[in-house]
Amino acid sequence: MYPFAEGNVYVRNAWYVAAFAEELDDGPIERIIMDEPIALFRMADGKPAAMWGLCPHRFYPLANGIVIGDAIQCNYHGFRFDGRTGACVKIPSQSASPKGFRQRIYPIVEHGAWLWIWPGDPAQADPDLLPSLDEIGFGPGWRNENVGLQPTAGRAQLLIENLMDLTHVAFLHGALVDGDSFLESPIQVAEDGTAMRATRLARTPWVNGFYDVVFGPDNRFAGLHESQTESWYHSPGYIRTDIGTIRTIEGVATIDRAVFGLLNFHHIVTPETRHSTHYFSAFSRNYRLDDDDFSTTMKQLDRDVRAQDVVAVGQIEERLQKYPPQSTELLARADKAAVMVRRKIQAQLLDEAETAAISQQRDPAAM
Amino acid sequence: MYPFAEGNVYVRNAWYVAAFAEELDDGPIERIIMDEPIALFRMADGKPAAMWGLCPHRFYPLANGIVIGDAIQCNYHGFRFDGRTGACVKIPSQSASPKGFRQRIYPIVEHGAWLWIWPGDPAQADPDLLPSLDEIGFGPGWRNENVGLQPTAGRAQLLIENLMDLTHVAFLHGALVDGDSFLESPIQVAEDGTAMRATRLARTPWVNGFYDVVFGPDNRFAGLHESQTESWYHSPGYIRTDIGTIRTIEGVATIDRAVFGLLNFHHIVTPETRHSTHYFSAFSRNYRLDDDDFSTTMKQLDRDVRAQDVVAVGQIEERLQKYPPQSTELLARADKAAVMVRRKIQAQLLDEAETAAISQQRDPAAM
Amino acid sequence: MYPFAEGNVYVRNAWYVAAFAEELDDGPIERIIMDEPIALFRMADGKPAAMWGLCPHRFYPLANGIVIGDAIQCNYHGFRFDGRTGACVKIPSQSASPKGFRQRIYPIVEHGAWLWIWPGDPAQADPDLLPSLDEIGFGPGWRNENVGLQPTAGRAQLLIENLMDLTHVAFLHGALVDGDSFLESPIQVAEDGTAMRATRLARTPWVNGFYDVVFGPDNRFAGLHESQTESWYHSPGYIRTDIGTIRTIEGVATIDRAVFGLLNFHHIVTPETRHSTHYFSAFSRNYRLDDDDFSTTMKQLDRDVRAQDVVAVGQIEERLQKYPPQSTELLARADKAAVMVRRKIQAQLLDEAETAAISQQRDPAAM
Repeated sequence: MYPFAEGNVYVRNAWYVAAFAEELDDGPIERIIMDEPIALFRMADGKPAAMWGLCPHRFYPLANGIVIGDAIQCNYHGFRFDGRTGACVKIPSQSASPKGFRQRIYPIVEHGAWLWIWPGDPAQADPDLLPSLDEIGFGPGWRNENVGLQPTAGRAQLLIENLMDLTHVAFLHGALVDGDSFLESPIQVAEDGTAMRATRLARTPWVNGFYDVVFGPDNRFAGLHESQTESWYHSPGYIRTDIGTIRTIEGVATIDRAVFGLLNFHHIVTPETRHSTHYFSAFSRNYRLDDDDFSTTMKQLDRDVRAQDVVAVGQIEERLQKYPPQSTELLARADKAAVMVRRKIQAQLLDEAETAAISQQRDPAAM
Repeated sequence: MYPFAEGNVYVRNAWYVAAFAEELDDGPIERIIMDEPIALFRMADGKPAAMWGLCPHRFYPLANGIVIGDAIQCNYHGFRFDGRTGACVKIPSQSASPKGFRQRIYPIVEHGAWLWIWPGDPAQADPDLLPSLDEIGFGPGWRNENVGLQPTAGRAQLLIENLMDLTHVAFLHGALVDGDSFLESPIQVAEDGTAMRATRLARTPWVNGFYDVVFGPDNRFAGLHESQTESWYHSPGYIRTDIGTIRTIEGVATIDRAVFGLLNFHHIVTPETRHSTHYFSAFSRNYRLDDDDFSTTMKQLDRDVRAQDVVAVGQIEERLQKYPPQSTELLARADKAAVMVRRKIQAQLLDEAETAAISQQRDPAAM
Repeated sequence: MYPFAEGNVYVRNAWYVAAFAEELDDGPIERIIMDEPIALFRMADGKPAAMWGLCPHRFYPLANGIVIGDAIQCNYHGFRFDGRTGACVKIPSQSASPKGFRQRIYPIVEHGAWLWIWPGDPAQADPDLLPSLDEIGFGPGWRNENVGLQPTAGRAQLLIENLMDLTHVAFLHGALVDGDSFLESPIQVAEDGTAMRATRLARTPWVNGFYDVVFGPDNRFAGLHESQTESWYHSPGYIRTDIGTIRTIEGVATIDRAVFGLLNFHHIVTPETRHSTHYFSAFSRNYRLDDDDFSTTMKQLDRDVRAQDVVAVGQIEERLQKYPPQSTELLARADKAAVMVRRKIQAQLLDEAETAAISQQRDPAAM
């Protein structure tokens, strides 16, 4: 599977957003994550639960059912399963419940306005590995807006590489930058443990349209400014890109950050299948916090821009599946960040495959 | 293929409804049965014919053509095939017809308002194996209503097991029964040759809504009654479930059967492919025979209730194909009837597979 | 693959229409031909170019981009490729372009109002192999009408055999001929190098409806006439059928060709995939040249008639894929032309397969 060999394609030991928290307001939902059907619901105390989504009796989707206490009740024949342990706690028309049975349970935490699950080894599910609330726009002085789930008909890796290769902004989203100065700007790449940052700093004029929305047309200025565009790769499930961040303005000593604040775009990437991805969209800002009209306008603009990526990824996915490549990839200098992220992910996949092999050697019965 | 091993999945030596008789009123139709395209049409004397549905010349669907005498004429190049023998009786632009050729013909009989075909060995196609006219609601004192064909995107076995596990009525069709008393009622299972009955007898109050339609709100009574729900498995292609049959009423010596008559639901299950099923719906009654409004209301209600099963079966089928089971099925006491039917079908499949193997040993050329 | 063995299914060394010329008026388009995605666009001088359609960088469809000079620029990251050589002439954010890289280029010529490409060995792409302008209705005294692209959900061979077996006209398009006299007429087949003609000459009355459109109801006559129907197979990508050509009229010495002129139907057959075909429709005439209303009426009629073939081919394709044949094809005398064309195509496929094998022996590295 592009760009990797077939086989192990999901990094499982990582946090991935399973849903916006508000999606559970009206009862259980089913979500496919890494080819697994998962029932998501809230228990009696409001805590989220994530469970293998098919009833072990007749394979009916559990999320069609209702929650009773901490358990979800299948709406086909009424079997009930506890959200914390997976135990079968009730079978209708009989008094006893099966003792040994456990439905698979996934670690899940609510963090920000999002529900994060850990599809890998539960023992490694450490909440400290989540991006901090400040980083995802839920800290003090920040306002977050969920833009929605944008289903993407392509493998997650295509979306990750899209987000790490900033050059595409000048073509696919040409209205967001001044093309010439953007493309001339150098690319800085910095590793930070498992994370990574790719940054372009361009000397550029006011960008009509986009800046008018973000900063307001009344705040237009004439001189050039240093505009920073940055992609921050945190993990396979979370990337942030910040576009149009003004670092300096020609002839202006102190920038008014109440006007020229920071606007961060959250890219929440959760593999659905080998060929499709849940793309949860959100952004946050540290200025114009009470401006609801700005929120509304910005959500529409954000959704439209991401839709361009969603279409592109879907077009590539369709063609990757149908047409064998005519040549090895033609890489460019601007691919550095994307290639580095690809190597990180490949290393994690290899590491997880080796761990699985070792655990099978120790416990042959598990094979 | 759930719940059986891959391979031989259709019991072929049995009668299956191919169509409601009225479906042939406007000319030939094509129906896929057990992965075979079959042309159904009426010959000169009105008798039905069933023939392999693709013209042997260019594989065009014969059912697009017209009937001339006892033969169907292909609408592509005008070849004609006799409905009784399968002989090619006419090829345009030439005088001679091919002598040896025979298009495959299936045994078919009209019985009740339905056309039944025998997809297996024609020599075994015994009309005495059909359920009687009384049993299917065409005997004296009965009125039958065809509800329609409800295409079901799931394998037939899922529908059969749905129909044999009465517990699901209390959840998926909760409005049809009083849940608590229904689920507490014991399940009786009785074998009857190749057939089988599963019965629940519950002490239960009047069921608002459903009983109001079936018996009329003017006939409401206050005391409990014995309500019988029964699934009768006749063969893989025909099951009947009778819901809300009132056996006794507390404090009532003689039940007025002109009011509290019998209402039987016919479940006609014909495999279309390994993953889809023709679900022909019909019901019959022995009371309110002249009440056309009742027919209309009941048909709508019946269709809506079955649609709940159709949706459930489709959701399970989709997931069975996509997600490997996490465990063996978690069975319950209420599964007894479904499991017994499953064993009957498995035995028939094994028997047909052995017969095929023996006939191939005798006639190696047939391999 | 019916009617041939699996494997090599496309005759590649032949001209195929890739598009109506006017389709490039609004910029590049992508077209799938023989399972290959091809970007079609016009260069600075207006000449057409055909290039492997996926950018070698991230496999994004090139046809989404714009043309700059003679090069197409990918709209994802801005890579540019020359339409004549396939060289990569520009990568943004870097000064150098890759020296050795060549994107695949296809020979393409504009001829008539159509763009023809050669999917096989470029060295054999000889424009003299195209049908002449007279033959395709662009010579003096002729008027051509493009009817449109009619996507066909079936393999090209089904369409070719449809067009070569004239018998089907009497059934699938019964309104175009007098059935009885047409079916009684003898079939003449004449080979002409790689081409072939199949002709029927029928003594037939005026055909109401069709003739009324083609010749006008005011020109009706009472006697019989000799009506010629001809299929002319030029190559796997181009067939012409002429229906309703009046050769002689009973009791008429000299036929007025300004009224009873020639009407030719062009069948442009380009394989899209193994199971689908681009069917470009057009017709031309040598009479009523200034009658625009006739053009409009005739285009609608032509489109409707071809739609009957498109539906038939789609129905056959679907069934060929699903149902194994029950017998070998039942052939008829009227199949002679179709069978001869099938043999021609089989011979070409074999020839191309042998050439490929020899070239691989000579150059093992090419394997």
